[in-house]
Amino acid sequence: MLPSVSLLQSLQPSQWSAMLVIYLVAITAEAMSGALAAGRRDMDVFGVAVIAFVTALGGGTLRDMVLGHYPIGWTQHPEYVFLVIAAGLLTTLVARHMHRLQRVFLVLDGMGLVAFSLIGCSVALELDYPLFVVVISGMLTGISGGILRDVLCNQVPVVFRRELYASVSLAVCLLFLALRSLDVHAEVNTIVCFVLGLGLRLLAIRFHWRLPVFSYQQRWE
Amino acid sequence: MLPSVSLLQSLQPSQWSAMLVIYLVAITAEAMSGALAAGRRDMDVFGVAVIAFVTALGGGTLRDMVLGHYPIGWTQHPEYVFLVIAAGLLTTLVARHMHRLQRVFLVLDGMGLVAFSLIGCSVALELDYPLFVVVISGMLTGISGGILRDVLCNQVPVVFRRELYASVSLAVCLLFLALRSLDVHAEVNTIVCFVLGLGLRLLAIRFHWRLPVFSYQQRWE
Amino acid sequence: MLPSVSLLQSLQPSQWSAMLVIYLVAITAEAMSGALAAGRRDMDVFGVAVIAFVTALGGGTLRDMVLGHYPIGWTQHPEYVFLVIAAGLLTTLVARHMHRLQRVFLVLDGMGLVAFSLIGCSVALELDYPLFVVVISGMLTGISGGILRDVLCNQVPVVFRRELYASVSLAVCLLFLALRSLDVHAEVNTIVCFVLGLGLRLLAIRFHWRLPVFSYQQRWE
Repeated sequence: MLPSVSLLQSLQPSQWSAMLVIYLVAITAEAMSGALAAGRRDMDVFGVAVIAFVTALGGGTLRDMVLGHYPIGWTQHPEYVFLVIAAGLLTTLVARHMHRLQRVFLVLDGMGLVAFSLIGCSVALELDYPLFVVVISGMLTGISGGILRDVLCNQVPVVFRRELYASVSLAVCLLFLALRSLDVHAEVNTIVCFVLGLGLRLLAIRFHWRLPVFSYQQRWE
Repeated sequence: MLPSVSLLQSLQPSQWSAMLVIYLVAITAEAMSGALAAGRRDMDVFGVAVIAFVTALGGGTLRDMVLGHYPIGWTQHPEYVFLVIAAGLLTTLVARHMHRLQRVFLVLDGMGLVAFSLIGCSVALELDYPLFVVVISGMLTGISGGILRDVLCNQVPVVFRRELYASVSLAVCLLFLALRSLDVHAEVNTIVCFVLGLGLRLLAIRFHWRLPVFSYQQRWE
Repeated sequence: MLPSVSLLQSLQPSQWSAMLVIYLVAITAEAMSGALAAGRRDMDVFGVAVIAFVTALGGGTLRDMVLGHYPIGWTQHPEYVFLVIAAGLLTTLVARHMHRLQRVFLVLDGMGLVAFSLIGCSVALELDYPLFVVVISGMLTGISGGILRDVLCNQVPVVFRRELYASVSLAVCLLFLALRSLDVHAEVNTIVCFVLGLGLRLLAIRFHWRLPVFSYQQRWE
């Protein structure tokens, strides 16, 4: 086991402070997107807090439950929980101005997608799961918070219908493992994944890149 | 660890028989609410039984899965499983008369909310989780059965939209921990939590107390 | 512990090769049903792959999480994961011809229902859970993949509304345990469960056997 991977996973604010900052920014951005989704369903502020929590920390929770990785991450980090709840509640105050920050928000959300994917890979590597599980763990961490948000808000998950999103998570996980197998240093690997992953996501938004859609309206019987 | 907390959690019918009775009443009431929700979606009797089960025991199941607390409670208590399935199926027979019992039902449901919250706190305390996790565990046990019910019935969880409900769970958890830190005897603590928690819930229903709603209809792009 | 049960559960391709073949056919059929459901929601091919995966392997995943059975089955079997993703993606190519194969598809799906139920029972038996948990484990494995598919596709689970389906799973689990308690040889037991379970399912489809529906449209207050 590479010690750097261990550090990445446990996210101690030592030499990995950059990763920690990005993680905190990411869960904040995810919490805000959860709060807005709750607002579209006219939820009360308690519902806003719960959806913010689930969107930001639900992906990692589901990953830990699937991998049998106890105790689950946020149970050891009250500061993450208070941060995402505060971010969700503050969003209700600033929501009407947020469309002006749309571009910033999309960049933060993209950074979160990459950060979550890398963290998910690292946790599964720590636990010595086979490589295909590592990739699934990365994607699970990256996209399932948004899926849980959409299920709780009673809508079809947007992650399967908009510009490249889940695919960016997959690409990041594969790139991370490829560079790792070439013994690229973990810090360099992380930086390369961020630059290329975030770049791919932003290009996809800019040029409306989407995967082919499968539309099937036939009814049997 | 306080032995009383342990007793509360394991719910042995010894000196804690009052708590056990309340728990059984609570899962019965939750099962009935699940059955009615299934009926609103025209499910068959199997669906009714499943939704009753999930509504009554799903919150504790999710809590145990999040906390890594195995084996999950109901797997050791067939009587709970048979009780909630029977309650769900019987509800289909008496449903048309149930609106006359609305007030009784709301009291039972409120008792269940308090009982589930206290049990959720106790389980997390047993497992030595930090106090903020204890509170989340209490709320998870208190409200997530109803959330799972609504997700399976394809509607936005009502728990985030009606009179104070999740907030009552939060208040009960905080009160329980506050009194516990003051070394109040566990039985007294439980009674105080019940009186104040149930009182708050019933007042909220009577006077239509709600949390502020966050309504956000803006679409970006 | 009966070794045969252990073999059934671990699904090694030795003398249990028939069971393995049926299992592979079953997860393929489930993956295809997931892909079609994703197509009805106009998902992109990534969404198709995810829904195929969840429909085929989500029931077993949920069972393992409820029973605390780690590592979860598919994490040790990359071939299952690749098979269901490939089946989901191929479905997008052949979907418009699939209505011609409707009958074949229903038979495969019925075989999957029986196979999943038996495997779910076996896993819980392995873990020494009480018999009522064994039955629930069988049903959870049999039907919850389809429930997760429907929740992710934002519709009320069809499993609770159409011809006998969940009931077939229950009947198979009870029959399996009854024959096992009579010391019927595991292979004979499995064959009898398949013949009767699949027969019941196909008869139910042919003659539109349904459970009684509970319809409750009353609104209180």
